Amino acid sequence: MSATCVCGSDLWPYRGIDPVQQPTPMGHEYVGIVEEIGSDVTTITPGQFVIGSFFASDNTCEICRAGYQSSCRHRESVGENGAQAQFLRVPLADGTLVATPDVPSDDLLPSLLAASDVLGTGWFGAVAAAAGPGKTVAVVGDGAVGLLGILSARQLGAERIIAMSRHESRQQLAREFGATDIVTERGVDGVAAVKELTNGLGAHSVIEAVGTQESMLQALRSTRPGGHVGYVGVSHDVTLPGEEMFFSHVHLHGGPAPVRRFLPELIDLIWNRTIDPGKVFDLTLPLDRAAEGYAAMDERRAIKALLRP
Amino acid sequence: MSATCVCGSDLWPYRGIDPVQQPTPMGHEYVGIVEEIGSDVTTITPGQFVIGSFFASDNTCEICRAGYQSSCRHRESVGENGAQAQFLRVPLADGTLVATPDVPSDDLLPSLLAASDVLGTGWFGAVAAAAGPGKTVAVVGDGAVGLLGILSARQLGAERIIAMSRHESRQQLAREFGATDIVTERGVDGVAAVKELTNGLGAHSVIEAVGTQESMLQALRSTRPGGHVGYVGVSHDVTLPGEEMFFSHVHLHGGPAPVRRFLPELIDLIWNRTIDPGKVFDLTLPLDRAAEGYAAMDERRAIKALLRP
Repeated sequence: MSATCVCGSDLWPYRGIDPVQQPTPMGHEYVGIVEEIGSDVTTITPGQFVIGSFFASDNTCEICRAGYQSSCRHRESVGENGAQAQFLRVPLADGTLVATPDVPSDDLLPSLLAASDVLGTGWFGAVAAAAGPGKTVAVVGDGAVGLLGILSARQLGAERIIAMSRHESRQQLAREFGATDIVTERGVDGVAAVKELTNGLGAHSVIEAVGTQESMLQALRSTRPGGHVGYVGVSHDVTLPGEEMFFSHVHLHGGPAPVRRFLPELIDLIWNRTIDPGKVFDLTLPLDRAAEGYAAMDERRAIKALLRP
Repeated sequence: MSATCVCGSDLWPYRGIDPVQQPTPMGHEYVGIVEEIGSDVTTITPGQFVIGSFFASDNTCEICRAGYQSSCRHRESVGENGAQAQFLRVPLADGTLVATPDVPSDDLLPSLLAASDVLGTGWFGAVAAAAGPGKTVAVVGDGAVGLLGILSARQLGAERIIAMSRHESRQQLAREFGATDIVTERGVDGVAAVKELTNGLGAHSVIEAVGTQESMLQALRSTRPGGHVGYVGVSHDVTLPGEEMFFSHVHLHGGPAPVRRFLPELIDLIWNRTIDPGKVFDLTLPLDRAAEGYAAMDERRAIKALLRP
């Protein structure tokens, strides 16, 4: 393992919101050099530098071929094996791992690691929200996924990007990634601010990168009729009111990002230094100080902690 | 007014589920010949045979131009004026009404009337569910909207269409409209039956044409990851579980159909006798016997009642 990191979703069990009954391997983001392969592996070879994502997928079933590798019929959780470690077993290696053109220089590591989940997830949020040329995109959530949703929307050609953030350092990164407007309000006031910026209509595309009831409603209500909500914040205790959904006229799509669909393109963009998603890592620690990374993210002192095994 | 009819959604107040506090004009489906125009109307002229839908729209605002005329910034309810009547005032006539090439022959009336809502709504359900070539489409609900969702999916090129219906006469019409398979089970068993017909995956596209909690969950659960649910049944006491939505990986879209978007194309298909959606009318009554139409639909003795003023 060359690098791994702490995910916003790792904070749910850390905070006890997702109960943890026993010692449990943690982490599901990873880049590294292949040490050994299983006997059925045909395309991945030892020595390659590879990136995979949180779900292993065969990449051949009907669902994978439709681009939903994170719902692969034979999917397995990679996180169960624990990527915050020196070594990681990745099942279904041929379908799951993508090799870079060469072993990358050290400065590319953070961005390549970001592709493993947080960039892939922000990218899926932007795609699910139909971000693109001529569109105004609003982003609910200023964690690493939300910030990389901004980068993704910009890369996909969005005209205007509204970051919803109350934290100055995150606002700054949001602007670096392409945000054109900042809204500091939340809830009803946040929705009103987005509408004010969009001629009373709401954004064309809204990326939801939190996963709470408040953030989902904020996303739904910030979207104009006919617009798209892309939700990638792992849903926690959310129930959507049917009548409001119905009359909102929005499109809703999201879920666990099929990162595998986007990996070749994302690796390319990083390799060519077109994008620099690694900027979300504002704390780097040796693996044996992982606990400090959790604490810093929990207290929002760090956006995202990179761990070096 | 040449013809009007009773809608499934008229049954909500009829049954007391939507409370009615005072005498209220009813009906929102209409075709007829223009008698008079307002002073601002420029494109519609007296003598034209016209079709409109339940919401009046300017057809020029940004939302209309995006194809969501039923969320027009200046929309007005036509139903408030009551289309089950001899005459109807239609606001925003230029944006709302579409004239046929000529005054139609009498046998085209039922199909043209169907375009006013029930066909337009089924069509939007099929479009929202992304029905098309190579797709397996399931339809939840065998009312007139569900049945015309089948016709629409067929017309849009769907490969296989699963009608979910327990009523023999409706199953027969479903087959006439293009259904290739019938599933009689509901709820958990209905979902299992759809999965069995689709290699364990679920349908690519599911049209939801009821609007209850049970039907929405049946639709969500009958759709494969990456597939689309198009919901057009007016939502009543529905709450969608966020976590299930998230992990289902489906697309969700729907709401009050922007019939105006589809009217020119639908009129064309009817005028050329490519489609015959008027078959959903299995009861025709003079307007002053409208109450019998409501009763017959309420007791499911009729699919849809046409009223002749």
